[in-house]
Amino acid sequence: MRLAAVLQVVAIFAATALSAAAATRSPNIIFILADDLGSGDLGSYGSPLRLTPAIDRLAAEGARFTQFYAPTPYCAPSRASLLTGRYPSRHGLLGNPTPDGTPAVDQLALAADEILLPQLLRPRGYATGMIGKWHLGHKTVESWPTRRGFDSYYGILYSNDMRPVQLIKQESVAEYPVVQATLTQRYTQRALDFITAHRERPFFLYLAHAMPHKPLAVSEKFAGKSGAGLYGDVLAELDWSVEQIMAKLRALGLDDNTLVVFSSDNGAYFGGSNGGLRGMKAMTSEGGLRVPCIARWPGRIPAGQTLATPAVLNDWFPTLLASAGGTPPGDRAIDGRTLWPVLAEKSAQLHEATFGFQGTTLRTVRSARWKLHVEASQPRAALKPGAPWVDPRAPDGVTILAPVGQAHPSQYPGLNTGDPLRAGALFDLQADPGEQHDVAGAHPEIVARLRALSAEFIKASSESRRPKSP
Amino acid sequence: MRLAAVLQVVAIFAATALSAAAATRSPNIIFILADDLGSGDLGSYGSPLRLTPAIDRLAAEGARFTQFYAPTPYCAPSRASLLTGRYPSRHGLLGNPTPDGTPAVDQLALAADEILLPQLLRPRGYATGMIGKWHLGHKTVESWPTRRGFDSYYGILYSNDMRPVQLIKQESVAEYPVVQATLTQRYTQRALDFITAHRERPFFLYLAHAMPHKPLAVSEKFAGKSGAGLYGDVLAELDWSVEQIMAKLRALGLDDNTLVVFSSDNGAYFGGSNGGLRGMKAMTSEGGLRVPCIARWPGRIPAGQTLATPAVLNDWFPTLLASAGGTPPGDRAIDGRTLWPVLAEKSAQLHEATFGFQGTTLRTVRSARWKLHVEASQPRAALKPGAPWVDPRAPDGVTILAPVGQAHPSQYPGLNTGDPLRAGALFDLQADPGEQHDVAGAHPEIVARLRALSAEFIKASSESRRPKSP
Repeated sequence: MRLAAVLQVVAIFAATALSAAAATRSPNIIFILADDLGSGDLGSYGSPLRLTPAIDRLAAEGARFTQFYAPTPYCAPSRASLLTGRYPSRHGLLGNPTPDGTPAVDQLALAADEILLPQLLRPRGYATGMIGKWHLGHKTVESWPTRRGFDSYYGILYSNDMRPVQLIKQESVAEYPVVQATLTQRYTQRALDFITAHRERPFFLYLAHAMPHKPLAVSEKFAGKSGAGLYGDVLAELDWSVEQIMAKLRALGLDDNTLVVFSSDNGAYFGGSNGGLRGMKAMTSEGGLRVPCIARWPGRIPAGQTLATPAVLNDWFPTLLASAGGTPPGDRAIDGRTLWPVLAEKSAQLHEATFGFQGTTLRTVRSARWKLHVEASQPRAALKPGAPWVDPRAPDGVTILAPVGQAHPSQYPGLNTGDPLRAGALFDLQADPGEQHDVAGAHPEIVARLRALSAEFIKASSESRRPKSP
Repeated sequence: MRLAAVLQVVAIFAATALSAAAATRSPNIIFILADDLGSGDLGSYGSPLRLTPAIDRLAAEGARFTQFYAPTPYCAPSRASLLTGRYPSRHGLLGNPTPDGTPAVDQLALAADEILLPQLLRPRGYATGMIGKWHLGHKTVESWPTRRGFDSYYGILYSNDMRPVQLIKQESVAEYPVVQATLTQRYTQRALDFITAHRERPFFLYLAHAMPHKPLAVSEKFAGKSGAGLYGDVLAELDWSVEQIMAKLRALGLDDNTLVVFSSDNGAYFGGSNGGLRGMKAMTSEGGLRVPCIARWPGRIPAGQTLATPAVLNDWFPTLLASAGGTPPGDRAIDGRTLWPVLAEKSAQLHEATFGFQGTTLRTVRSARWKLHVEASQPRAALKPGAPWVDPRAPDGVTILAPVGQAHPSQYPGLNTGDPLRAGALFDLQADPGEQHDVAGAHPEIVARLRALSAEFIKASSESRRPKSP
């Protein structure tokens, strides 16, 4: 019996135990997803700026993952994995739906037969609300949150720099152009209202902030206050948002029975920090794939834990389902595994391997301390300070309303040095978390093992991308 | 009998004649005031850009003044003169009410005992509506448009770069921060709605656009379309606004019985054009004081007239009153004179002299072709192209939402050469419209005459600033 199978059994036991508990009163679930936030941006992950006391308090009162991954360093496929529990190669949304791009990317959407977390929570009595960035399809209303399991929606259907940036309320345009300076304030107020409205029943709130994705924007109350530039102001306001939500839970007596998760969809972009990891968003080096992840549920998740078990956003799908007493659909492969063995028992291994995708391609495999670049990672260059640079998606004051001071591509969020990220490069993340020294030559057997794991996954996922027709 | 007295008699006759006509059906009045628009910005005044066909059509179908003046090159006192018929030294609002300045300027407001045009039109059966920039006081609601004669108000109480930039609807904040890109569109839509709502009765609509005052802003439909930069885009949208209003009047069958005036509160700022005049806004050279002025009323104002008679914004107060069959209050000095002798009979002289103020000080006198700088005009320097410049009131994307590309102080709107604008400088505006050659030395008798006229006015206005207590 392989370790993965053992863990699967443990997970089923854990889910069953939780299921029994949930029968009395299912927990509320709040999943807060920041956009392009790097783990180096948070005080609890070592940011010297210390702008995130409320988020750090979540970690102090719960668990903080240090080796947590997005399945891909791109927004949409990563979010689809979170809500389906499946790697991009299986759920099939391999790029970002883009309203101002080519017709092909304009029409991208998560396949209609994918099953999303809120669809499974709803029949379990959950009120399901989404606020913020969707990015699983915008072209036709059939792919909008309200048609994919959420009772309510208020947000921007894609990135806050894609035109037209417009706020959707349920299924109508509520604001265009969008005053981005007040977006975090308004998302937060909606979140508080949602919590209050559903205080008497279990709810699932998916709050996917627009920030700190460019264009960065903060309200007047936070503008210029952090002492760390606009990016710092944005972090402070996101932290304020978490503080408001936690205060509301306490005020309503809900904080003991609410599982709160805070994470990000991929590593940091220019201006942010990946805390010494290599590279940034859109790369499959650690700076692109590694994300912060914090979970708090008093009584269920022991306080103050730091968890070094590698895990992936996909894992929240079965984890949250289990918390609500549910089980994943049995008609398809689910890559995610419930995190409860890790959260509750500090299990050191959940997956034999985790994977990183870029577009259609599996590019990286991680297993324990080792990471293999199966395919080369496309680098993302930094510019020299002051080098001319025009962002075609920058605020223009007409269609995109946001502060004009944006990060410059010289403000690289990660390490930009080290051996080439060539196909076949192997890094020992325990000894070399910054992926500086390619040790493939010294460990051919590890390279071979990781290659085999990736080949196995590619084969399995290509055979099972869609559930079989009946 | 001096000429001024003769004209006064003519004016009274004209007013009486109009009064009789008005008894059958008083005309609608639409006064469109642009902010910082220079006469060189309009095609009908010679702009080679030709971005203003609808405004130019007003001129072709009515009268265009070539020697029309603001009484001062500052927003608030100029607007107060328009609505009271009195020079700043009499109405007493000598500076701009400024919400983000010192307490003294924050509290500035037009004196409560000043009588405003809409207060006099209302009892004559007029619906009175104001849209746009007020700037006659903001600190207490007693000084707002709805308390000074207007039935309805929708706009910003001061300049669109003064914080907090907020839209007021009647007496409440309707939007903050303000999406300035859609301001002209929304002001126009409100104007059309006002016209439609009051089609059955005479109305007075005072539409005081925010544009082209900085920060410049246009809607998506006009952004980047003029081929003349953001300033050109703004002009094109203002012209579109006039086109919409005229189309609405035609559609409702009101255009024959509506007097439409288009003007500006002072000369152009950086980025605009004063059409070869010297200097710019905030100066008492012609580039600060001279404004475009166009009036259209089919049947009453012969079409296609170009009028070189010097006149002042103050003159519209008795002119519009007369059009509605009213007469100015008799308890105070009114500096404005009805323009009907000029508009209807092309009278070559209306005033023996007109004056230009800066703050508390009378600085210029014009009489026929001559202009004397009684006091020195404070120059406003241009910067070299690309010179570092930070506008503390620039859009920031947080409290002021507008396109980021603003005019640079190198884009000087007027001539920036010529003899010093010293106290005592005399210019022959007929021979030297650009005020380049000081001819005081050659015409001491003219200097003396103009000095005497200014001294006479200063004495008279200081004695009569306020109506005497009963």
